[in-house]
Amino acid sequence: MNQDYIKPNPWSLIEEGFDKERVKSSESLFSIGNGAMGQRANFEEHYSGETFQGSYIAGVYYPDKTRVGWWKNGYPEYFAKVLNAPNWIAVNVHINGQTLDLNSCKKVVGFSRELNMKEGWYKRSFMATLPNDVEVQVNATRFLSLDLDELGAIKYELQVLNSDAEVKMTPYLDSGITNEDSNWDDKFWNTTKRTSIGNRAFIEAHTMKTNFATCTFMDASAEVNGKNIKAKEVENTEFKVGCEFQYSLKKGETISLTKFGGYIVSRNHKVAELTDVAINILDKALELGFDRLLEKQKDAWASVWEMSDITIEGDVKAQQGIRFNIFQLNQTYLGKDSRLNIGPKGFTGEKYGGSTYWDTEAYCLPFYMATKNQKVAWSLLEYRYNHLEKAIENARKLGFTNGAALYPMVTMNGEECHNEWEITFEEIHRNGAIAFAIFNYYRFTGDYSYIPEMGLEVLIGIARFWHQRANYSAKKKKYVILGVTGPNEYENNVNNNWYTNYLAKWCIKYTLEQLQKVKDGYPVDYDRIIAHTKLTSDETELWDEVATNMFFPYSKKHEIFLQQDGFLDKELIKVDDLDKSDRPINQKWSWDRILRSPYIKQADILQGFYLFEDNFSKEELEKHFDFYEPFTVHESSLSPCLHSIQAAKLGRMEQAYKFYLRTSRLDLDDYNKEVEEGLHITSMAGTWMSIVEGFGGMRVLDDKLCFNPQIPKQWKSYSFKVNFRNRIIKVNVSEKETAFELNGHEEVSIRVNGERVVLIPNQKVVA
Amino acid sequence: MNQDYIKPNPWSLIEEGFDKERVKSSESLFSIGNGAMGQRANFEEHYSGETFQGSYIAGVYYPDKTRVGWWKNGYPEYFAKVLNAPNWIAVNVHINGQTLDLNSCKKVVGFSRELNMKEGWYKRSFMATLPNDVEVQVNATRFLSLDLDELGAIKYELQVLNSDAEVKMTPYLDSGITNEDSNWDDKFWNTTKRTSIGNRAFIEAHTMKTNFATCTFMDASAEVNGKNIKAKEVENTEFKVGCEFQYSLKKGETISLTKFGGYIVSRNHKVAELTDVAINILDKALELGFDRLLEKQKDAWASVWEMSDITIEGDVKAQQGIRFNIFQLNQTYLGKDSRLNIGPKGFTGEKYGGSTYWDTEAYCLPFYMATKNQKVAWSLLEYRYNHLEKAIENARKLGFTNGAALYPMVTMNGEECHNEWEITFEEIHRNGAIAFAIFNYYRFTGDYSYIPEMGLEVLIGIARFWHQRANYSAKKKKYVILGVTGPNEYENNVNNNWYTNYLAKWCIKYTLEQLQKVKDGYPVDYDRIIAHTKLTSDETELWDEVATNMFFPYSKKHEIFLQQDGFLDKELIKVDDLDKSDRPINQKWSWDRILRSPYIKQADILQGFYLFEDNFSKEELEKHFDFYEPFTVHESSLSPCLHSIQAAKLGRMEQAYKFYLRTSRLDLDDYNKEVEEGLHITSMAGTWMSIVEGFGGMRVLDDKLCFNPQIPKQWKSYSFKVNFRNRIIKVNVSEKETAFELNGHEEVSIRVNGERVVLIPNQKVVA
Repeated sequence: MNQDYIKPNPWSLIEEGFDKERVKSSESLFSIGNGAMGQRANFEEHYSGETFQGSYIAGVYYPDKTRVGWWKNGYPEYFAKVLNAPNWIAVNVHINGQTLDLNSCKKVVGFSRELNMKEGWYKRSFMATLPNDVEVQVNATRFLSLDLDELGAIKYELQVLNSDAEVKMTPYLDSGITNEDSNWDDKFWNTTKRTSIGNRAFIEAHTMKTNFATCTFMDASAEVNGKNIKAKEVENTEFKVGCEFQYSLKKGETISLTKFGGYIVSRNHKVAELTDVAINILDKALELGFDRLLEKQKDAWASVWEMSDITIEGDVKAQQGIRFNIFQLNQTYLGKDSRLNIGPKGFTGEKYGGSTYWDTEAYCLPFYMATKNQKVAWSLLEYRYNHLEKAIENARKLGFTNGAALYPMVTMNGEECHNEWEITFEEIHRNGAIAFAIFNYYRFTGDYSYIPEMGLEVLIGIARFWHQRANYSAKKKKYVILGVTGPNEYENNVNNNWYTNYLAKWCIKYTLEQLQKVKDGYPVDYDRIIAHTKLTSDETELWDEVATNMFFPYSKKHEIFLQQDGFLDKELIKVDDLDKSDRPINQKWSWDRILRSPYIKQADILQGFYLFEDNFSKEELEKHFDFYEPFTVHESSLSPCLHSIQAAKLGRMEQAYKFYLRTSRLDLDDYNKEVEEGLHITSMAGTWMSIVEGFGGMRVLDDKLCFNPQIPKQWKSYSFKVNFRNRIIKVNVSEKETAFELNGHEEVSIRVNGERVVLIPNQKVVA
Repeated sequence: MNQDYIKPNPWSLIEEGFDKERVKSSESLFSIGNGAMGQRANFEEHYSGETFQGSYIAGVYYPDKTRVGWWKNGYPEYFAKVLNAPNWIAVNVHINGQTLDLNSCKKVVGFSRELNMKEGWYKRSFMATLPNDVEVQVNATRFLSLDLDELGAIKYELQVLNSDAEVKMTPYLDSGITNEDSNWDDKFWNTTKRTSIGNRAFIEAHTMKTNFATCTFMDASAEVNGKNIKAKEVENTEFKVGCEFQYSLKKGETISLTKFGGYIVSRNHKVAELTDVAINILDKALELGFDRLLEKQKDAWASVWEMSDITIEGDVKAQQGIRFNIFQLNQTYLGKDSRLNIGPKGFTGEKYGGSTYWDTEAYCLPFYMATKNQKVAWSLLEYRYNHLEKAIENARKLGFTNGAALYPMVTMNGEECHNEWEITFEEIHRNGAIAFAIFNYYRFTGDYSYIPEMGLEVLIGIARFWHQRANYSAKKKKYVILGVTGPNEYENNVNNNWYTNYLAKWCIKYTLEQLQKVKDGYPVDYDRIIAHTKLTSDETELWDEVATNMFFPYSKKHEIFLQQDGFLDKELIKVDDLDKSDRPINQKWSWDRILRSPYIKQADILQGFYLFEDNFSKEELEKHFDFYEPFTVHESSLSPCLHSIQAAKLGRMEQAYKFYLRTSRLDLDDYNKEVEEGLHITSMAGTWMSIVEGFGGMRVLDDKLCFNPQIPKQWKSYSFKVNFRNRIIKVNVSEKETAFELNGHEEVSIRVNGERVVLIPNQKVVA
């Protein structure tokens, strides 16, 4: 955990004081993004200290050659990697010939950062004494426009405090950037054109191999006392292009630089027109100006918050935590483009290479379904449909046939991006999460159309995979699934992971049901799909045989399902009985010791009980929770949120709250001491779930929205909104009551604590 | 399999015809070595085609930084790697200014290689037409002296055939060499001094980090028509130093170059004296001359063969195979230095980085015990004793305490050199092989002294490891060993691998017995060891509890032990029923598919039945052989030999012979299509075992040497010798009888087919 240097504040992240040790962590925490691009909170001016530079463009990646110690058959040769893109924020500052560099200043006082989540901007201020004793005050504000999502804007104001001074500001673009996380030090970018015209500059560069063409652009203007300063041309270097402003500031005067910049990419425009599009965007930006653009930014974020905000009264740290999570999710993905997805680090770091994990389906989808137009969730589903052929190809590489599909563990373009055999080849439950998302989308939105249009083909590929992946055990007289890694990655290559087997069975049964439903209701789609997949009733009978006779490890003694075969052979010492010096085990123990221990990285059987809770009684949940939770170390960011939800369901609010705090402030409090590498974006959706589904008890049962509201005793009240089938319902939970407000035109009936409640438009209903 | 280009010949490897595609394979097959150094059969003259350069010095290694895809706790940061050493064989040849380079010659005819195993030399001849149309005949002979094991010698004769020609020969040393198998392209060698004085040259270089200092040296002389040519100095380059001979040869004349060279290393000499020692060696070499040195080489090899030869009458390919195996083993290790060991590729390639595997104890020890003075076997055991502290340190890194020792999977200096968690951390049965070797040494040699002097401490460290590694299963009410990889590496992270559990139990029980025996017979040693290890009776009681209550997976239905928990859940399709296109599975299948299949890479339970055969009946062996062999793909070089022995024991000579051929000609026939990377040295000892223990049925039972001789129907007779407790016994098996000859002074009684037979010195006894 860090030193808690982020001040508690309901709407902002505020850091005060300059600490070189914190620069990289703050660069992560103060990241900004707009769904199309994003960047770490790097300084505009030169900084010679420890920093992790990062600016990322959604969907722009590079297939880096795989690095392994020992090659295993089936590893991908290459994997897509998030790329650090050319830097457009840079502004070199010289005062009387001396570079402004916070790392070498004599004194830095009044340093502060603010990330204003309500309005979507980031500001940094400081007063610095340069080595040449000139004192300057700097205020720099930056945002990435939600409206014009190819555009970012910076206002960089510098005042000289103690003397007159010759100031030179050099705003520039730089394509001479690298990735920290590069396997073989490949060159990722090829710069093809650098142009500067007066105060504008453009760099055209494309990624090697993937050939994503980009134009990075800028327009800079500067003024002193309301008067513009003319830009001078500067000599371009191999990767840099920009302009220069020079001015003799009198003591107390301020030079104010406005820089617009961003990226135009070939995913959205013709390669030949990238620079023209950039010029257009810059013209638009200048027409509006920085201030007007910032106003529009506030409006845009206001409408995001209007739908997705969660308020918490009486607990500012919890409030800040949930808003930070919601803010970052919206910075990362807004659902405008089905070719994009939600990377575990979003636009805040490079790690984990590829962009999409099963996190999207298992954790992010519920958030986006409830807080956005349902098209956003559709886009997330469509993303996988578009990757179906690659998932089939992926399964083929592993020996599966006949259109069986295995979705990759990590991917950017549908191809597998990971290379640990125990994960890549064996953590196959991800396939189930993708099928479950299809079910979940229909359950929540009531929109069945995705299934005949796209989903059923995905389901067939997945069902085929499970059918082939199981085998008949003559010994058990059941179908078994051998050699898997479940959600608990602290077990590898185990047999009959209960969660995986359960998902496999469910996927097949659900696919069989949907086949019948599409056959009955959408015969044209059905015929198309059958023709395309060549599915026969012989095949589906075999599926059914496997699903019906799936094996589930069970302990009669404990009356619980076993996480996998042989779990009870372990030395069952509870986490609380471990020595503190052994924690976290993933930093203290060798891998074999972790594997043979009973310790659970993240919910495994409890993940299954979460997804399929209707199939289990509360008593069963309680038994499993009580058995497994004491062995759970929660060393995955995805674990505490699910436990919070389950604890809440069991009425254990104190425990639920504890888990909630851990999930919601994971990055703010840097639990895992790694925030400098970037934020845990996907688990942030789990935080949302732990309030809405955990405390709020929101479910959809038999097409009805249901709530079982509870409130942690630390809170006075909390509120959230959900978009349920185009009706916006606001829920406000306090200690004594729950109030509902319906935004819309028609009544809707919901269930609260098992009772039917009718919501009337624009009327507060207390339950 | 290759095209069988090596001509069948009882004593030599002969290749005829020049094929660029074969160069790298032949470089492996024609490798030479003398236990202290060795080299691939690279050409002396420049070669611009595909080649794999390699010259290696025993015990000279570099700790290369580990390369992994995803780091796991416990991986070694660095691992020792066999190093390509400076090249001393190089001779550049220019004819009328044109470089002699077989890759660019207009014609190469009469190309042949011979590796004369009987006499220990390698010769290459060819006639080449250079691009400038000069035809030359070259004969080059090379050997590494067994007597002076820091010295090698080359005679390089070149005749111009079709015209007069200006010939320039430049013998040189080159320290600008690299390893093919380098993780991060580190520079491995630091060249500190290059000297040339007339026709002699010296390069002093030390390895980075490990600081092994070496002097690579040469002395060259040339003559035409019996007259010496004066050497000219040549300008040294950064890494090269040498001299030059120039002569205008008349058509038909021959220039004959003699080059002596080799390495002096700081393991054996003071760093300051390396060059002086080299000068000494060169003086000695010159005094003797090439021909006399070659005579001594023949004598030295004659005495190696005198003891270790195996003759096979009636099957030249089998004869060539076994001699090749014995020859290579002797080239690799002669047991003179307990700091050295037997690398799986010997001096024939770089792969597998470190030098020592459990192969040494499980496969090589029996060969060296039976064909050498028992000091050689002692040296191999002492090697592990010297590494005990590092094995304890290694176990500590993995969380074990109190002096528990885990020997590394792969090592050069006692530190772990491998980084796959499923191997490094889990293939722990290696510890058992090291304990078994101690038992085996005493069983065969009758020399108990190793145990009180060194072995008992090794055994205690190993017993401690097993005790801590097992845990009590409340479910099974037995001790289990979870998360291991057995000898069959096609199963990873399994529970209760029968072989591992059996070894663990045996190790503890054997250690307890030896503790008692040393206490009774060697009280001074006992006190020293107890004081040093702080072993208490409380601790040994706990060991005993674990060993006595060890769990062994068993199938009542099949009446066999199971390779591991859950083996019978697999889809049990026999290897013969697999499609040919699926083989070898390690090249065709992804790792997960291999893991969940029943296919066995190498003997696992059968390895246990081999080591502990006295504990099982022939009927039990037969049941297990019949159950497991049909699932065994023998994709390890160590598998066929053990199956050959077991098949022979079961009287299935046809099958035993099939396995024998596969093991003995593995490299010659390039079964695994990888001979170009180097030879499989350690499995060659398994080939020896399959004749002596398999066909010959040699065992030691109750202190008596026993034989149960059989003969494959393809052979007329075969013979081998064993040194049993300083008595040399020659065994000659033919279809109708087995003859024994004892070399020594005292009678010895042995058992043949269960009958007592008394051997009288120097008298042939037929049984």
